[in-house]
Formats: sequence, C-alpha cells, structure tokens
Amino acid sequence: MYECQLKTRRRVEMINITREVEDEVRRRNIRDGLCIVYCPHTTAAITINEAADPDVARDIAAVLERLAPHRGDYAHAEGNSDSHIKTALLGPSQAIIVRDGRLALGQWQGIFFCEFDGPRDRRFFVKTLQDNS
Amino acid sequence: MYECQLKTRRRVEMINITREVEDEVRRRNIRDGLCIVYCPHTTAAITINEAADPDVARDIAAVLERLAPHRGDYAHAEGNSDSHIKTALLGPSQAIIVRDGRLALGQWQGIFFCEFDGPRDRRFFVKTLQDNS
Amino acid sequence: MYECQLKTRRRVEMINITREVEDEVRRRNIRDGLCIVYCPHTTAAITINEAADPDVARDIAAVLERLAPHRGDYAHAEGNSDSHIKTALLGPSQAIIVRDGRLALGQWQGIFFCEFDGPRDRRFFVKTLQDNS
Repeated sequence: MYECQLKTRRRVEMINITREVEDEVRRRNIRDGLCIVYCPHTTAAITINEAADPDVARDIAAVLERLAPHRGDYAHAEGNSDSHIKTALLGPSQAIIVRDGRLALGQWQGIFFCEFDGPRDRRFFVKTLQDNS
Repeated sequence: MYECQLKTRRRVEMINITREVEDEVRRRNIRDGLCIVYCPHTTAAITINEAADPDVARDIAAVLERLAPHRGDYAHAEGNSDSHIKTALLGPSQAIIVRDGRLALGQWQGIFFCEFDGPRDRRFFVKTLQDNS
Repeated sequence: MYECQLKTRRRVEMINITREVEDEVRRRNIRDGLCIVYCPHTTAAITINEAADPDVARDIAAVLERLAPHRGDYAHAEGNSDSHIKTALLGPSQAIIVRDGRLALGQWQGIFFCEFDGPRDRRFFVKTLQDNS
C-alpha cells in the first residue's frame, strides 16, 4: 500500500491527484487489475469527475455547500458537521480498473482529493490488486 | 475487462444493466471474487437500487434534479453542471461480491447505468477479480 | 464471503459495525488486500465516517432527511422512497484496504450500517481479497 501526503490550503478544496495515482500504478508494474484510492479522514473524500475545466469541481463543491451548509443547525459541536456530511455524500474511496498497466479512466475523468475541513496535512492510500486469473 | 456499449434516449435515464453484468460474470467463469462496474464518463453514474418498480429509479432521479437543478446558477459554462454533480453524488462505479459464480445481489437489487446528460452513445466497463485464497 | 445478521430498532439508525468487519478480516487471516462490506438491501446503505461522537452520524441522517424527506411527493407508492434515495446517496458498499492483517481505517473512521426503513431484520456481507502480488 502506498501512502501519499498532501497539504491543503483552503477549507474546501478539490485537488487533482490523478498523476500521483497513475505513478503508483506504474511503479507497482501490474498489467491488469484494480486500483483503490482511499481517504482515511472523516472530513475529506475521494471523487472522480471532470478534470479539464476546474469550474466543474467548483460547482460540485458549491452544491455540496448548499446541501450541507457550513453554518447550519447541527448536533456535533466541532463546527465541521457539514464536512462530515459532504464526505459521506461523495464517499471515502474510489475503485478504478487497471488495464494494460494504466488506469482505465475516461477521457475527461480525473481523481480528486476533496478537502472539506482544511487547511490541513492530509494523506490518502493507493492499493493495487493484480488480476491473476 | 469487458466493455459494454449502450445508447441512451433521454437527458436523464436510469437503465437496468444487471443482465449485462451477470452475463459477463458467467462468461469469465469465476466462482468467488469481486465484480466492478465502472462508468468512464463524467456525466453518467452507476448505482444499485430497487429494480422491481421503475418508480424507485424515477424518484431517485427526481430528487437529484431537486438537489442539483438542470437550470441553475453554475460556474461551468456547458449547461451540464447538474449532470456532473449528480454523477459525483451517486459515484462512477459499484462493487458487487461474486459468490458461487453469481453476483451476490439482494432480492430487489439491480444495477443501473444513470444517464444525466443524454441522449448519447455511452459505455461501461465490467471487471471481475477471482479470489485465489 | 461472510454474512452478518442484525436487527435494527428504529426507522433510521446508524449502526457501527466496525468490530464485526475487523473480526472477519482476522478470521480470514489475510495480510494485505481488500475488504468489501456490502449491503444487499435497497433501503439500507454502508458508509464510513466518524465513530467517536455519535452526533456525527445523527447529523448525517438529519441532513439526508432534509434532502429526501420521509413524507414527500414521490411516485413509488410504498412510502419508503426517501429510504431508497438515501441509500443511493450513501451507496450499498464500501471498500477498505487491508494492511498487515488489519483494516487500514483512519483514526476516527468507523464503518456504519445505515438503516433507512427499519425496524427490520437485516444483513450485510463481508468479502476479503488477498493481494497475491
């Protein structure tokens, strides 16, 4: 398992981590299989979406803020309930198929680390599974 | 990895693809393991939910439209920000356990390709991993 | 594949199942690989989030109730459309990396069975895949 560190700079930030994940798949030298990108935090998520126009990630973050506003009426007293909820909606991990030694991402897809309670020191895990069939 | 093509006919459409996924599991002849269904598009998703009453999929699409309306105030200028956001909320893939050569789906569960920016030519991937333990 | 039974006691309930999943990983005696937790129901989901303060799970359930209210205007006539929608938003499964024989969960992460149409007799599946590379 590969562990990647990153520093986030804003409270909410969508960081393209596709290259880091692709590099790890190449290092592991697997031909076909599966790649899991996993976030061990409870106020940050992993998603896959368009990486060409940064406005797409901005729109996703903006709608999530409308669905779960930072300043809302929550039970959890730490002021980051919205961050936990946004994390639950996008999910803590993504699975990507590996084919011919590369991530089988679509043309416009990129993998994003979604910070919802930054800025912080963060990390994510990358695990590859070789298909031995 | 198996790639399945499909044509969608409406802007938003929930298409039951359970049979195509089951057929691929049978063709691969694996007994126990994992099956990943992956959508390489950024405005279409994969979900698992009730396949018996089509009203369930209709209700899911209707609530997503309320959460991220097609005509909304978005930064991304292509008129399909809602499609990207709906895709992020449901996610680009699903993992299903394979047991005794079949998908371990629940009685009412079906796998859906969720079109959020159709009509279009689309595709999805199916990858199986044999459990060799 | 391991199947775990549980009884839920309320309509909406977030049940920490981390220990049951960890126990199964230990029983399977795998060192490195992947663990899939899968819910075969269409009105219950699996999520991963903070397990220390139960208010976090309460806040997640409360926001989901606002996004998809129990008493809403739905097509599906069984009175549980909200449960299907909440399930679609959180998803039917989670994947967790296994490292050194243990789930690679973050410090605050726990795995939750999310009941959205209880009380009911429920079950979930745990599947581990050994990394043989």
